[in-house]
Amino acid sequence: MLKEAIYHRPKNNFAYAYNDTTLHIRLQTKKNDVDSVELIHGDPYVWENSEWISTKTPMTKSGSDDLYDYWLAEVSPEFRRLRYGFSLTSKEENLTLTEKGFYEEEPKDCGLYFCFPFLNKADVFRAPSWAKDTIWYQIFPERFANGNVDNDPEGALPWGSTEPTTTNLFGGDFEGVIEHIDHLVDLGITGIYFTPIFKARSNHKYDTIDYMEIDPQFGDKETFKKLVEICHEHGIKVMLDAVFNHSGYYWAPFQDVLQNGESSKYKDWFHIWDFPVQTKPKPNYDAFAFVSDMPKLNTENQEVKDYLLEVGRYWVREFNIDGWRLDVANEVDHQFWREFRQAVKAEKEDVYILGEIWHDSMPWLQGDQFDAVMNYPFTTATLDYLAKNNTKAEDFAHSITKVLHSYPKNVNEVAFNLLGSHDTPRILTICDDDKNKLKLLFLFQLSFIGAPCIYYGDEISMTGEQDPGCRKCMIWDKEDQDEDMFAFVKKLTHLRKERATFGNHGDIRFIQASNDTNHVMYEKTSDDETILFIVNNSDQELVVTLPDGTQGKVLHDIWNDEEFAADAEILQAKLPAYGFQILSYK
Amino acid sequence: MLKEAIYHRPKNNFAYAYNDTTLHIRLQTKKNDVDSVELIHGDPYVWENSEWISTKTPMTKSGSDDLYDYWLAEVSPEFRRLRYGFSLTSKEENLTLTEKGFYEEEPKDCGLYFCFPFLNKADVFRAPSWAKDTIWYQIFPERFANGNVDNDPEGALPWGSTEPTTTNLFGGDFEGVIEHIDHLVDLGITGIYFTPIFKARSNHKYDTIDYMEIDPQFGDKETFKKLVEICHEHGIKVMLDAVFNHSGYYWAPFQDVLQNGESSKYKDWFHIWDFPVQTKPKPNYDAFAFVSDMPKLNTENQEVKDYLLEVGRYWVREFNIDGWRLDVANEVDHQFWREFRQAVKAEKEDVYILGEIWHDSMPWLQGDQFDAVMNYPFTTATLDYLAKNNTKAEDFAHSITKVLHSYPKNVNEVAFNLLGSHDTPRILTICDDDKNKLKLLFLFQLSFIGAPCIYYGDEISMTGEQDPGCRKCMIWDKEDQDEDMFAFVKKLTHLRKERATFGNHGDIRFIQASNDTNHVMYEKTSDDETILFIVNNSDQELVVTLPDGTQGKVLHDIWNDEEFAADAEILQAKLPAYGFQILSYK
Repeated sequence: MLKEAIYHRPKNNFAYAYNDTTLHIRLQTKKNDVDSVELIHGDPYVWENSEWISTKTPMTKSGSDDLYDYWLAEVSPEFRRLRYGFSLTSKEENLTLTEKGFYEEEPKDCGLYFCFPFLNKADVFRAPSWAKDTIWYQIFPERFANGNVDNDPEGALPWGSTEPTTTNLFGGDFEGVIEHIDHLVDLGITGIYFTPIFKARSNHKYDTIDYMEIDPQFGDKETFKKLVEICHEHGIKVMLDAVFNHSGYYWAPFQDVLQNGESSKYKDWFHIWDFPVQTKPKPNYDAFAFVSDMPKLNTENQEVKDYLLEVGRYWVREFNIDGWRLDVANEVDHQFWREFRQAVKAEKEDVYILGEIWHDSMPWLQGDQFDAVMNYPFTTATLDYLAKNNTKAEDFAHSITKVLHSYPKNVNEVAFNLLGSHDTPRILTICDDDKNKLKLLFLFQLSFIGAPCIYYGDEISMTGEQDPGCRKCMIWDKEDQDEDMFAFVKKLTHLRKERATFGNHGDIRFIQASNDTNHVMYEKTSDDETILFIVNNSDQELVVTLPDGTQGKVLHDIWNDEEFAADAEILQAKLPAYGFQILSYK
Repeated sequence: MLKEAIYHRPKNNFAYAYNDTTLHIRLQTKKNDVDSVELIHGDPYVWENSEWISTKTPMTKSGSDDLYDYWLAEVSPEFRRLRYGFSLTSKEENLTLTEKGFYEEEPKDCGLYFCFPFLNKADVFRAPSWAKDTIWYQIFPERFANGNVDNDPEGALPWGSTEPTTTNLFGGDFEGVIEHIDHLVDLGITGIYFTPIFKARSNHKYDTIDYMEIDPQFGDKETFKKLVEICHEHGIKVMLDAVFNHSGYYWAPFQDVLQNGESSKYKDWFHIWDFPVQTKPKPNYDAFAFVSDMPKLNTENQEVKDYLLEVGRYWVREFNIDGWRLDVANEVDHQFWREFRQAVKAEKEDVYILGEIWHDSMPWLQGDQFDAVMNYPFTTATLDYLAKNNTKAEDFAHSITKVLHSYPKNVNEVAFNLLGSHDTPRILTICDDDKNKLKLLFLFQLSFIGAPCIYYGDEISMTGEQDPGCRKCMIWDKEDQDEDMFAFVKKLTHLRKERATFGNHGDIRFIQASNDTNHVMYEKTSDDETILFIVNNSDQELVVTLPDGTQGKVLHDIWNDEEFAADAEILQAKLPAYGFQILSYK
């Protein structure tokens, strides 16, 4: 047994409270090295005749990547306390792992074992319950729909009349969203993520001028309130984008510092290195990247904190929004986000807090800060395999398995799974306009664990290169919309909602991945059913053997709504190039 | 290269802010597998000609245990942001490790690398600056000294007239401590940790009746205030013991629940499973272990929080205490401790917060909760090797190296390093009354990184078995005190204070550990000097070769204050059985 490969450390993704009564304990071992693992566990204070009383629960292999196998046990300790270790068996040996290391004989002293001291409810990672079942839709307000030409900004161009540039404007607004609410309801989405709507100069509005005002080109506060109400009436949650890492150049406090220098009462609201403040050739203050227009906010300053936390509360309290997406969230201090969570959840308990973080994000997902991050590791792995052909099936299965095991299961269930956004090329464009590939992308995204997000227009096969190309005006002319793609995505959102196991209530696991055929097979299981997904990411027809457990069952092809009995000894499925199959059985 | 053994994940002990400008980046590799490691690092936003600009810094091997080598690099990123990876070299190959895995060619895309997004000051682990230089002394107030017989509890026995039992009383009090302050000053300690002083029934006072009152057998609030003042005048900090996991049986709110059951206004202050409340045969409420006298407090209840946080603030505000030691800290929710830290640090910025946790404690030591935990992994490793002879030199060096690499360096520097307490047998008793071994224990404890704590009486060679034996009355009769041991410990405390490198301002590293001779050699290094500690934990004379780097130097034996030139080609030291040597050179 390769001891050096074996890893466990309590909390984070290796030992965590899944809910108020259940702990998940995970272990990492070298791939194909250990035959079975049992969790040795007991209450630290239950002893008989001076001996600690423990029991054993078999662990299941929940996945494998290129280097490791991962094992999982689920336990519900009666008194919410747990001491535990691992009994590992291979052909050659049996070892016990405790916090103090490896033992050939199972040690009796419970003080040597790993400790999950108490399952306190206050520490359980707790995202809003609705988040798990939400299908998000991202709207870039300037480009979704122009519902009111009276509030168009100066120089606004006719809708869709030309390619987007970094500066041009088309007059998208709230009334446009209201006008097209039926499109969203029909598609089956249940949450809108709006990129910034606050007063700003650019067309993307990430350069906030006033956090308490709506940009007049989108409408007024009354219209926004109406928009939220209409969304809610249609079962759609509303999430706004908060840029708290930095302000815009024209934000009053920064202007005050530029004008009054060291005597400005806002001088400590930023991280100014020395006075006088200069913006050229390089800023002499902390800025996002080195962009002088985006001075970093001093979120350690009490006045700044008070101000931003009130912003957080204000839009929840006054407009009843349901979520905050936090821009450049990883560069702001953890302490600020802890206070942010307390503040907004005090206003409304089930607000969803989503951080923009592109890398491994465990430190922000421990229950005290965010409910989710934008799941770019999912994005990258999925696009590399299905859209770009950069990786093969096995790499893909390994990458996704790694992502799943990097976080607790309750974190994965509400992860914000995007395939594209206003910051990336359109996914159809990445697919080289291959709509079969786009369909496979949607299939995987909408059958995966987590909360998927569709970028406006992808559902009707819009295209576009990296920003600004990906920010084209939404196509509303029915003839130019791809109705087939819309119907495809709609079918997926409905399946996701109708079948709990298809949606977010099943365990997901890869069961086949072959570089030769470039296909993957994954299953989602729950008490209700097992759903088998076969994805043929290849230009060749695929003939594939169904896994053990399907024999003798009635298989239900839920995409085509056909049933057949799996009577043969060896059961095979045949899929066309870039085809897929979805089979349910009990 | 054994990829499976290589581990790094940002934050915790692997990537952390050591101070406001410095990051420590660590890597784990299989023992003796990798020849050298370089840290590849750069600011994520510094690019030239579309290429990310990174530099390389060699990592040093900071220690090894039985399975792994550990590598460290210290970097101070100019703009407080860092993307980084590792370039690993062995005889056979060169690999680059990033967040996305291993690469044979160093990848150029900085987005693949590990990320330390921003060194925000608010997130730096920040213990009080004085904690690093404190030598603690633990007082069990009932047994330290009886300075005032008028406040003796009923039935108090003459001082030291008999063996301690679980219930008897001897009348120790605050005035006794004041009377003997010179003993403490002479010994050289700079902090007192008092086990509980609040009103309670038992002699140990862990069964709180009133968190806002002092137990009358110790004195009144005025006397306590005077005690704190006198301590401060003598450069001694004062830390109290808070039992917030559970109350005592006679605490008024619990009595109210017992009497009024479900109609008690305190019914939600505990975790009552059902009514009526029963204490026998087993409590039907959460309790510490299953002890019905210690009902677990509901620290998720706002009223309980408000009450306990005010307790935390009150004794700091009114009596100017310097620290809180938190009993059974691991079973209370993290959220409570976060609020506790905010509350007491708002009252006085440099209060030391020490949690009682016996196991691996990283989740509590991230800067948002505790400054330190009671370092029992240090205790166990040290006693096993030096006192009990359960382990040999190599195991000891591995265990201590593992402890050091389990936490950030700034956490290690303020760790509460105890060898014994009111809960364990006296260390001299564990040493089978071997005073040479006791001296080696004190030597290691007082030369180790962290804040050592001496349990009252150990410095004069008191003995005693597990509680109640370890709680004997302090011996004040000079003739019965071990003056030699006192002088030994005093010499160590003075060395620790006089020489920064001997104390807490040097890096510690094992350089020899041999199971054959059972000796260890460790060094502490700083810019000022290198101090070499040789410990001969054997009944045989030891002849040992000094390490490279000593040749040609002037070696200063700082214990005996002798100097000699290290002229020989191979330099040897000769130590008697259970002897030690401390050599300084530059």
